[in-house]
Amino acid sequence: MSKSKSKGAKKAAKKKESDKAAKAVKAVKVSKATKGSGKGASKSKASKRGSSKAEPLASAPAALAAPNVYDVPVDVEPVDKELLPAEPISSVLRVRRGFVLADFDPESTPGFDEGRKEGEKALEAFAPEIGEWQERLFAETKGGGKRSLLIVLQGLDSAGKGGIVRHVMTNCDPAGIKATAFKAPTEEERQHDFLWRVRKALPGPGQIGVFDRSHYEDVLITKVRKLVPAGEITKRYAVINAFEREVIDSGTEILKVFMYISRDEQKARLMERLDRPDKRFKYTPGDTDNRAYWDDYMKAFQVMLARTSTVAAPWYVIPANNKWYARYAVQQLILEKLRAMSPDWPVPDYDIEVEKARLADS
Amino acid sequence: MSKSKSKGAKKAAKKKESDKAAKAVKAVKVSKATKGSGKGASKSKASKRGSSKAEPLASAPAALAAPNVYDVPVDVEPVDKELLPAEPISSVLRVRRGFVLADFDPESTPGFDEGRKEGEKALEAFAPEIGEWQERLFAETKGGGKRSLLIVLQGLDSAGKGGIVRHVMTNCDPAGIKATAFKAPTEEERQHDFLWRVRKALPGPGQIGVFDRSHYEDVLITKVRKLVPAGEITKRYAVINAFEREVIDSGTEILKVFMYISRDEQKARLMERLDRPDKRFKYTPGDTDNRAYWDDYMKAFQVMLARTSTVAAPWYVIPANNKWYARYAVQQLILEKLRAMSPDWPVPDYDIEVEKARLADS
Repeated sequence: MSKSKSKGAKKAAKKKESDKAAKAVKAVKVSKATKGSGKGASKSKASKRGSSKAEPLASAPAALAAPNVYDVPVDVEPVDKELLPAEPISSVLRVRRGFVLADFDPESTPGFDEGRKEGEKALEAFAPEIGEWQERLFAETKGGGKRSLLIVLQGLDSAGKGGIVRHVMTNCDPAGIKATAFKAPTEEERQHDFLWRVRKALPGPGQIGVFDRSHYEDVLITKVRKLVPAGEITKRYAVINAFEREVIDSGTEILKVFMYISRDEQKARLMERLDRPDKRFKYTPGDTDNRAYWDDYMKAFQVMLARTSTVAAPWYVIPANNKWYARYAVQQLILEKLRAMSPDWPVPDYDIEVEKARLADS
Repeated sequence: MSKSKSKGAKKAAKKKESDKAAKAVKAVKVSKATKGSGKGASKSKASKRGSSKAEPLASAPAALAAPNVYDVPVDVEPVDKELLPAEPISSVLRVRRGFVLADFDPESTPGFDEGRKEGEKALEAFAPEIGEWQERLFAETKGGGKRSLLIVLQGLDSAGKGGIVRHVMTNCDPAGIKATAFKAPTEEERQHDFLWRVRKALPGPGQIGVFDRSHYEDVLITKVRKLVPAGEITKRYAVINAFEREVIDSGTEILKVFMYISRDEQKARLMERLDRPDKRFKYTPGDTDNRAYWDDYMKAFQVMLARTSTVAAPWYVIPANNKWYARYAVQQLILEKLRAMSPDWPVPDYDIEVEKARLADS
C-alpha cells in the first residue's frame, strides 16, 4: 500500500542526495569495465563450448551490468541497510560459464548473512518499492513507453514457483501483472510450434509478466520423458535463445529464475500437501511418478542452464529449500532489474497550468 | 501473506465452534423469510415501474439473502468485533426500489461507526480472509468447480475504482485475478455489439474478475454525450439485465459497485493529480471537460441504478469521498459475497493413503 509514500518522500530524497557522491565515484571506476558488457558487444565473445550458436554464458560481473543496483526511487521509505544483500544477489546467483548445478547447495542462503526472521522482515520492507516500480512501469506507457518485464520461473513441483507472485509482488496492482501458469499443452497448442502459446502470454507494454513454468518445459519434461526426439531438443536451445533475444529487442526485459530444492525437501513438501486438506488440491499422483526421474531432471536442468544462460537473459539459480530465502532472493533480483530499468513518471502531454485553471473554473 | 495461517487456525476453529450455536438460532429465525428470496422466486414479483421487462429492483433484505454473512473460514485469524460493520454493509448500501441518488451523502460512512483509523485497521485485518477465499475459489476448479466472481466498478474519474484491487485485494494471488480496465472502445470493438468485449473479459472458472468501468459505460457516457440514440440506450438496460442473468446462470456471481463522490471532492482529487508528478499520468484534459456534464451524469447514474439493480445483481452505492470508507465498504461486500459462495477445498480424486505410501518410497 502506498500510505507511507508522502511521508517517506523527503527522507528518501535526502538519502538519494547523500548517495549521489558515493555513486559518482563508483561510476567512474566501473565506466571502463562496463563498456563491452552491453548488448552489442556480447556477440564478439561467442561461446566456445556447446553446440548452441546463440550468445555465450554470462560472464560479466553482475554489479557492473547494473551499476545502480542499490539505487532507490525517491518516494518509498528507505530500508535498513542490514536487510540488503551483502552483495548484489544477481552477482551471487547468476549462472556463469562452468556452472555446475550439482555443486550448488539448495539449503544455502548466499548473499544474505541474516536468518529467517530478518529475511521475512526484508520481504515486507522491500514490498512497497516493487509496487512503486510496477506503477511507474505502467505509467510509462501513458507517455508512449512500450517496456515490460517478464519473470520466468522454473523448478520442480513444490519448489515454490506458485508462491512467488503472492508473496513477493504483494504491493503490485494485479491489473499490471500478467501471470500465466503453463500446464501440459492442450490439443490446440500441440498443433502449433512450442513457442506459440508462449508468445500469446508475453506481457503487454507496462506489464510485469510472470511465467509459472514456461517454454523451458519444452526442453525439460519433453527431454526427460522422451516426448520429443533428442535432435529436436538440441535445436530448441538455440531457438529459445533467439526467441528471447527477439523478446528483449522488442522492449521486454527477461528475468529467468530456477528454484532449486533437494530431493528430500520435495518429499517433505509433497507429504505436507497430502496431509493438509487445504493443500491436497495441489498434489497429483504424477508428482510422485516424476520423482523416479529425479536424476534425469537434474541432467536436463544442467544442460538447460548451460545452454540458455545468455548475457542478455542469464539464469539465476535460487537455493530454495528455505522458502523465506528463495522469496527474498527473487525479490532482490526483481528489484535489481526494475532499478536498472528505472521507469519514470511520464511528462504530461498537456499544459499543467492551463489545466489547473480550467479545472478551477469547472 | 499467509504467514499467520497455522497460528490462527486453532483460534479460528474455536471461534467457529462458539459461533455455531448463535448462528443455529439465527438460521431458524430467517429460514422462512429467506424462502422466496432465491433466484427462482424473484421473477414472480416483477417490477411495476420502469420499462425494463427484466427483474425488479432488489427489495429482499440483504441479511436474509446472505445468512452466513459473518461466517469466517476456519484458517484465518479472527478479527476484532468492532471492526465489523454495525450491520451487513450489503443491506445498508443496496439499491432498492425507490432509491434516489441525490438523497445520498458521498461524505457519509453508513454501517461503520468508527473513524478512519479503525477503517484502515479493518482493511488490513480482513485482507487475509479475502486471500483465503480467493484461493479456495481457485482450488474448487481442481475438483471440477466452475464458479467465479465478477466485481463491476463504476464511478466518475478519480472516484477510486483503480485503487480497489490494489488496496482491497492485496492478499489475493494475482494469478487468480482477472482485472480489466475498459477504455473508449477500439475500432474493432466498435464493429461489434457492445457486450462483445465484455464477454471476452469475463473471469474464467475459479477467478475473480474485476471490471474498472464496464458495459455500463454503454448507458452512461454514450447517453450523456449522445453517442447513441436515446431509444437504443433504453433497450440496453434490458439487454444488460438479460446478459447478467445469463452470466450468473453460468456460475459467475456478480457484485456491482457504484463509487459516488461529490463534485467538490472530484475537483480536489483532479487538482492533486495535476500537482503531483507521480499522479499526472492519471489526468487527461477530458476529465475536466466531463465536469461540464456533471448533472447529466447524475441523471444517467440514477436511471442506470434504478433500471439495472436486479435481485440477482443489485447495485451497491458506496459513498466514496472518504477513500478509507469506500475501500472498507467494498471489502465487506466482497467478503459477504465470498462467504455466501463458501468455496471449499476439493475432495481429492486420488487415494490419500496410497499416495502417501508411494511418496514415502520414492
